Amino acid sequence: MIRVGLLGAGRIGRIHGRNVAASGRAVLSLVADAIPEAAESVAGECGAKAAAAADIVSSPDIDAVLICTPTDTHADLIEASVAAGKAVFCEKPVDLASARIAACLEKVTRARKSLMIGFNRRFDPNFAEAERRIRAGDIGEVELVTILSRDPGPPPVSYIERSGGLFRDMMIHDLDMARFLLGEEPVEVHAVGSCLVDKAIGAAGDVDTAAVLLKTASGKIAQISNSRRATYGYDQRFEVHGAKGMIRAQNVPLTTVEFADAKGFRSDPVLPFFLERYAAAYRAELDHFLDAISSGKAPSPSGEDGLKAQLLADAATQSARSGAPVRLS
Amino acid sequence: MIRVGLLGAGRIGRIHGRNVAASGRAVLSLVADAIPEAAESVAGECGAKAAAAADIVSSPDIDAVLICTPTDTHADLIEASVAAGKAVFCEKPVDLASARIAACLEKVTRARKSLMIGFNRRFDPNFAEAERRIRAGDIGEVELVTILSRDPGPPPVSYIERSGGLFRDMMIHDLDMARFLLGEEPVEVHAVGSCLVDKAIGAAGDVDTAAVLLKTASGKIAQISNSRRATYGYDQRFEVHGAKGMIRAQNVPLTTVEFADAKGFRSDPVLPFFLERYAAAYRAELDHFLDAISSGKAPSPSGEDGLKAQLLADAATQSARSGAPVRLS
Amino acid sequence: MIRVGLLGAGRIGRIHGRNVAASGRAVLSLVADAIPEAAESVAGECGAKAAAAADIVSSPDIDAVLICTPTDTHADLIEASVAAGKAVFCEKPVDLASARIAACLEKVTRARKSLMIGFNRRFDPNFAEAERRIRAGDIGEVELVTILSRDPGPPPVSYIERSGGLFRDMMIHDLDMARFLLGEEPVEVHAVGSCLVDKAIGAAGDVDTAAVLLKTASGKIAQISNSRRATYGYDQRFEVHGAKGMIRAQNVPLTTVEFADAKGFRSDPVLPFFLERYAAAYRAELDHFLDAISSGKAPSPSGEDGLKAQLLADAATQSARSGAPVRLS
Amino acid sequence: MIRVGLLGAGRIGRIHGRNVAASGRAVLSLVADAIPEAAESVAGECGAKAAAAADIVSSPDIDAVLICTPTDTHADLIEASVAAGKAVFCEKPVDLASARIAACLEKVTRARKSLMIGFNRRFDPNFAEAERRIRAGDIGEVELVTILSRDPGPPPVSYIERSGGLFRDMMIHDLDMARFLLGEEPVEVHAVGSCLVDKAIGAAGDVDTAAVLLKTASGKIAQISNSRRATYGYDQRFEVHGAKGMIRAQNVPLTTVEFADAKGFRSDPVLPFFLERYAAAYRAELDHFLDAISSGKAPSPSGEDGLKAQLLADAATQSARSGAPVRLS
Repeated sequence: MIRVGLLGAGRIGRIHGRNVAASGRAVLSLVADAIPEAAESVAGECGAKAAAAADIVSSPDIDAVLICTPTDTHADLIEASVAAGKAVFCEKPVDLASARIAACLEKVTRARKSLMIGFNRRFDPNFAEAERRIRAGDIGEVELVTILSRDPGPPPVSYIERSGGLFRDMMIHDLDMARFLLGEEPVEVHAVGSCLVDKAIGAAGDVDTAAVLLKTASGKIAQISNSRRATYGYDQRFEVHGAKGMIRAQNVPLTTVEFADAKGFRSDPVLPFFLERYAAAYRAELDHFLDAISSGKAPSPSGEDGLKAQLLADAATQSARSGAPVRLS
Repeated sequence: MIRVGLLGAGRIGRIHGRNVAASGRAVLSLVADAIPEAAESVAGECGAKAAAAADIVSSPDIDAVLICTPTDTHADLIEASVAAGKAVFCEKPVDLASARIAACLEKVTRARKSLMIGFNRRFDPNFAEAERRIRAGDIGEVELVTILSRDPGPPPVSYIERSGGLFRDMMIHDLDMARFLLGEEPVEVHAVGSCLVDKAIGAAGDVDTAAVLLKTASGKIAQISNSRRATYGYDQRFEVHGAKGMIRAQNVPLTTVEFADAKGFRSDPVLPFFLERYAAAYRAELDHFLDAISSGKAPSPSGEDGLKAQLLADAATQSARSGAPVRLS
Repeated sequence: MIRVGLLGAGRIGRIHGRNVAASGRAVLSLVADAIPEAAESVAGECGAKAAAAADIVSSPDIDAVLICTPTDTHADLIEASVAAGKAVFCEKPVDLASARIAACLEKVTRARKSLMIGFNRRFDPNFAEAERRIRAGDIGEVELVTILSRDPGPPPVSYIERSGGLFRDMMIHDLDMARFLLGEEPVEVHAVGSCLVDKAIGAAGDVDTAAVLLKTASGKIAQISNSRRATYGYDQRFEVHGAKGMIRAQNVPLTTVEFADAKGFRSDPVLPFFLERYAAAYRAELDHFLDAISSGKAPSPSGEDGLKAQLLADAATQSARSGAPVRLS
Repeated sequence: MIRVGLLGAGRIGRIHGRNVAASGRAVLSLVADAIPEAAESVAGECGAKAAAAADIVSSPDIDAVLICTPTDTHADLIEASVAAGKAVFCEKPVDLASARIAACLEKVTRARKSLMIGFNRRFDPNFAEAERRIRAGDIGEVELVTILSRDPGPPPVSYIERSGGLFRDMMIHDLDMARFLLGEEPVEVHAVGSCLVDKAIGAAGDVDTAAVLLKTASGKIAQISNSRRATYGYDQRFEVHGAKGMIRAQNVPLTTVEFADAKGFRSDPVLPFFLERYAAAYRAELDHFLDAISSGKAPSPSGEDGLKAQLLADAATQSARSGAPVRLS
């Protein structure tokens, strides 16, 4: 049994904690949180004990840590954990500053420990299956990737202010997905952003509606669009056009019920938000992390993947502000 | 915590055992099975102990029993359990003989204990939501019910021989669903059956392809068709036509991935069999049983529902053999 | 150019007249109708002249006649037309009495002229393509046919009274489709009917909601259900389950537009009625008739097909009344 | 009856000629083409006479001309036609050079005659209905427009060389559609293009795969992607995300037939190319032109719409070449 320590017992930490407890191959031993009651609650539910983060990181009885704390603590905790010989899973992003991420990754490399970044969407069964078929060659060479991603509603402005902005906070998942689907690095980023959903977001210096155009060295193209609000649920789709065909992964509806009357046919909204839509993805993500620990293989997405997505998010942020495209080397 | 005893640790018993263990409001205490290793395995997985069925039924530390043993033991176990003051959940059918069911239900009534029958499909989130909307009046008065149900492949002939025949073993679920959706008792049953899938099934005296036409006293009509084989998964659908509209519940695909090329668009097969398709239904079914125990309300579907479905299955069996419709009083 | 005479210039006669005029290979020469203005109107629109039916039938300048008059004139007009050496297309049914149909067909056979019956649905591009694939073996041996057919609303009771009843007037199309899809003659007919849509229909001695169960000698099963009312358009679908797969033909929506909001996804109702849904079918039907004339091959569906569908409709009518199945030899 | 002259009897000219002949409110009188046989063929089919273009333009017996000749003749023919007092319908584009378009439109304005540009997609029943609902406020304020458009296969390189490039030849339709859907002018254009389908296209100086990002003054965003090849038919879709909901118009499949087996569900490819997909659009487009002539109202899309789409195509061409966005005043 892999002994796991959980750092951060918020909404996402609780999900990972439960998945560890239900995995059958790992045990949740210790849980830390800045709010002791949160740590106690998750620990109690999952048969673990509450502890201080520093004690978890240094404990000889912990094999792996899951970092689900606020972003500004991630890099330090990663460094401390790998220094203590732990395998590390960290929620995205490692840091809002790319330079800090790079410095952290260097220490991870030197420590020769594995670091996995929580780009959960790669593990959504629909998205993962589509990507598997793309890599298997079903659609031939990838040419055009289209990613549509809309949140059900905007987060509080207080969250927006600390988030690093839409491109780093929300679109980073789609930028990672674009890399995942393209199978090649984007080298050119055009971005536009607007504040159309909530003026308070604009007042806080951010956008709530945005689109990005990416191009790789070989000419593959990806487009992403984001909105902080969708009336019909959490909209998460993509389609990939290739030389031999097209593949897409659609949303998941609440139920398969359809109703018909004189107004036409009505089917359900899509799953409301990430807890519902990505429940299976979180389980598969944890499984992959545990597999990597067991087998000694490097987990994926790696810290490097986290850095590359962040650099794209930085480029998009800059492009949307300057109105000029940004080239990446 | 409701203390649950599990009688029968086969495929379906294991599902219920796990769901009890994960329910957070009940505890799986004891598990019995004719094969001790099976009982030990489920008990071990769910934090329970293996025990003899008779000891579970009589144990003062058990509040409720789940009967998942072979059909020919159901009625006796129900009678013993209610006599011992337990709440009882029993997999369908109570017995292959309707008279035996009726006798058993009388004892349940006299014992004033609750008996719930495992017509799991009523708890499928898609089916349940469709029925909820029908009862809410969304489609007005129900007029025509169409139920399509196909298994992925036939069971072994040895199973068929003990099953009571397709109408009692397989279609009984659809007959219950017809009652559930019609909201009124069928009084006329026309059935036809054929052996088209596997000649060995015909040699065993059964059919593998069948259809039934039901009519209620007020003239509502239901049609059901069954096949023991579908190449594209476990096909479980219905649609209900009413005065104000139509409602249907569709299958659930493996994933939402779609692929397109010169041959057209391809999407996934439907979920392969009942373990996958009805996983959520089994959880909701157990929840309902536990709710009923907690609240003291009668669970549904009841033993009476089990008997009525069995009488319809008997009528269909007779109609398919005689070629004449059967009227129920 | 094939010279065509049109007998009957009502709604369906006008469709056929226009299709002849637009065919590029036939010319509409003469048009008859009991209401002279109707004949003049269609003739004017299609470059033809109005004439008496008897004159059209006997005219040496007419190669083929299209019979779109009231049902009680069909058999006489067919007999007169084949006697005069014309190729004949006749709207279903030849007569409400099967014996009269049989007598008429004998005269057609003796005259060695071709007679095609207007079962237009066989020519619907969706239905025709599904049938083509079934005959090509895509789903293997046919096992279960399910046909759902609902009119948008009931006709006037005055029409119902002369119609021969739902089974002969409305379901006859589905009975023909069942024969078409089964590829084998039904030998057993179970029918049930109810009056649920409009009490006046019941008062007129007919039903408005009905279902039929058919079985062929080899055990293939078909089910059909009909309603005289559907709130969401003209509902015309079927699915065929076979040994190797399933094939179905769905409805055609008004447009491909989809709308989503918090209530879910909404798409269009299906095409409103037969003029819209079967516009392409009527063209293809006429093409087939003209092909048959040009090539000298017998058209299909034949008079025999018309008779067999009528015998099934008779059997269904009888079964619904008596409550007992009817066997056909 | 409106007397129509057709200039250009190629593939698209023939469609318009037939639609005039079938309209019931206009008559095709004269047809011109550089290839006399082409003019004769269309004239013969539609009851018209062949004539020289100059004679059609100057004929006092012609009310309206349809210009379907090669692009480099459009502007001159428009000018001559409006000078001669004709109503003019012209296939896009008026000219490959925006300055020439602007000069031509000035003459049209001075002549006070109407000019309609053949952006046929606006008249597709699916697209038109979606736009109607957007304008009716169904989705609230428009925020994000996504247009996916792929041809079934690339045209010959000889065509590409004279075409003005993908943005002016192919994407111009999508740029017009973006304006149509946004309801506001784009002021910023980012474009990327690649040659991924056919190297000969790249050798000819063009791209075959491209995407554009547009932004309006109020911050609405549109993205368009194009490929010169799609394996599954002529792919023509869009979706529009607004404050109150989302609306999309999907492709039209060949038939509604679905097949299922162990590989899953298969449905038809989409309609193969513009002749099939936009057959109804061409009829509705002509109807609108004839309506405008009859009512004296200005037709839409106007010459101004043609110019604005061309300016966007110019901007996209420039942006894709320079790698920098282009701002429009």
